[in-house]
Amino acid sequence: MSILTIGSMAFDSIETPFGNAPKVIGGACTYISWAASYWYHDIKLCSIIGDDFSEEEIQALQQRGVNMDGLVRVPGKKSFFWAGKYHQDMNSRDTLTTDLNVLADFDPKLPESYKASEYVMLGNLTPDIQMAVLDQLTKKPKLIVLDTMNFWMNNSLETLLKVIARVDVLTINDEEARQLSGEHSLVRAAAKIHKMGPEFLVIKKGEHGALLFHNGQIFFAPGLPVADVIDPTGAGDSFAGGMIGYLARTDDTSFVNMKTAIIYGSTMASFCVEDFSLNNLRNLRQEQIHERIRQFEQLSTFDVRELTLAS
Amino acid sequence: MSILTIGSMAFDSIETPFGNAPKVIGGACTYISWAASYWYHDIKLCSIIGDDFSEEEIQALQQRGVNMDGLVRVPGKKSFFWAGKYHQDMNSRDTLTTDLNVLADFDPKLPESYKASEYVMLGNLTPDIQMAVLDQLTKKPKLIVLDTMNFWMNNSLETLLKVIARVDVLTINDEEARQLSGEHSLVRAAAKIHKMGPEFLVIKKGEHGALLFHNGQIFFAPGLPVADVIDPTGAGDSFAGGMIGYLARTDDTSFVNMKTAIIYGSTMASFCVEDFSLNNLRNLRQEQIHERIRQFEQLSTFDVRELTLAS
Repeated sequence: MSILTIGSMAFDSIETPFGNAPKVIGGACTYISWAASYWYHDIKLCSIIGDDFSEEEIQALQQRGVNMDGLVRVPGKKSFFWAGKYHQDMNSRDTLTTDLNVLADFDPKLPESYKASEYVMLGNLTPDIQMAVLDQLTKKPKLIVLDTMNFWMNNSLETLLKVIARVDVLTINDEEARQLSGEHSLVRAAAKIHKMGPEFLVIKKGEHGALLFHNGQIFFAPGLPVADVIDPTGAGDSFAGGMIGYLARTDDTSFVNMKTAIIYGSTMASFCVEDFSLNNLRNLRQEQIHERIRQFEQLSTFDVRELTLAS
Repeated sequence: MSILTIGSMAFDSIETPFGNAPKVIGGACTYISWAASYWYHDIKLCSIIGDDFSEEEIQALQQRGVNMDGLVRVPGKKSFFWAGKYHQDMNSRDTLTTDLNVLADFDPKLPESYKASEYVMLGNLTPDIQMAVLDQLTKKPKLIVLDTMNFWMNNSLETLLKVIARVDVLTINDEEARQLSGEHSLVRAAAKIHKMGPEFLVIKKGEHGALLFHNGQIFFAPGLPVADVIDPTGAGDSFAGGMIGYLARTDDTSFVNMKTAIIYGSTMASFCVEDFSLNNLRNLRQEQIHERIRQFEQLSTFDVRELTLAS
């Protein structure tokens, strides 16, 4: 069994109110692969890089069981580059630069060994590319997860809707859920989005946590209050990676198990934001991760006491 | 044993993107008393009204066990009036009018029977008035809860800090916690605010839920996703009322019980926002409330599975 993941591998330049990180490793596929690799090793990566990308980074991922047969290297060209500046609240940011570079011509051809992957994670990318990947699959996956963003809703809505119709899980943020559905209430938004295709909807709310909607049921994973958020970049991708890594490992896509998967995702995201780039995702220990999962449990658990009304 | 509650009783005019409610019953003390009265009947109310306030409303509260000996009626004057307009997201609002009216001269004199109350809920008001109430208590209460807002941080910080030093529980929103502490991280903000006095800090985040901090421990109560938020006015007061009503009823101020109290508070707030004014808080049935508490449980509960790392 394997996880197929597609998305960017990139350089990011990050400015925050608390510090800067110029030209550090980033990209959805990088974060997803790192976070998933803690739980599952048969990860088939599909991405594109220029010859400026770090060979060490590729090797580090290979050592974690990430298959690079689907990685395209374009000589003489640069990797995707994104520069952004976070506002004081760290929940919002401005994009300063987007240099597509190699990503502009990305036309993924899946290696044969990728085409029957059971778990598919479509990282945030042009819907056309996401669709092209789905079209190359030779076997219906057990679960397809799609991450996307408002940019594609504004610029490629028609194709995006076709992709959404084909996936099992959609992950977007609250404003995007509102935009996509035209509903302000997230409960109503979820009902409309389910009708577009996805059986599961994950609404990411940054520091405020994440909501999982499925068949009239709702689960809420809190954001873990951490002492210092250093850099939120990649948190959503780490979330997706932790989630799909856990799901592939347990091979169970029930709602009950999906809830735990969301906690695994939130756990990886909570580590991600505590340092720039992937710094904090590289050397996590098992006990450290379990400890954090227990923190989520403590954060969420209460005694249910049902009192009679005062009389 | 009794709950002493102090705060405004008022008229509100509410504009939201989904409808308007001109000159409806409002006020912190009104919401607190209604929400608390489901769980506890010995509530001693301290407030001030003009002769325009509804006698029916007073009687309805009396029938729910609310003692009105501490209610001051000022003939020929008007009750406190607030008009506000909510933005599209319903999380932020503009104040259109604040007519203090009788509240301008409020100088509460607690009846003798109020002075030994075990549970004290200081609703949002001038810190001077909150202090004057504390000064009249003849017996140390089991728990004092203070609700306040940024307006008093901007205009009466010195007195506010003196009040904060004397209370056990402080309830404010996330921006106010940041302002009060000068810390962006809520974890760091909580540590600083604990040092100002309160053993418990509740940070209210509107639709995103509420955080409870105590002695290095954190609990998070999600906001219940409701299909339609009609009017958020009074949600924080309903939260406080549900919380203190539950605490007085169970007479247990441990962290474990405080967590359940936060869920009771969140439950009352979730009912409050589903209609204008106190409309939805007037006739709640026991089973309806229990059902909602179970919804909070379902929303928060997940199976903890600790996996070994992939090898």
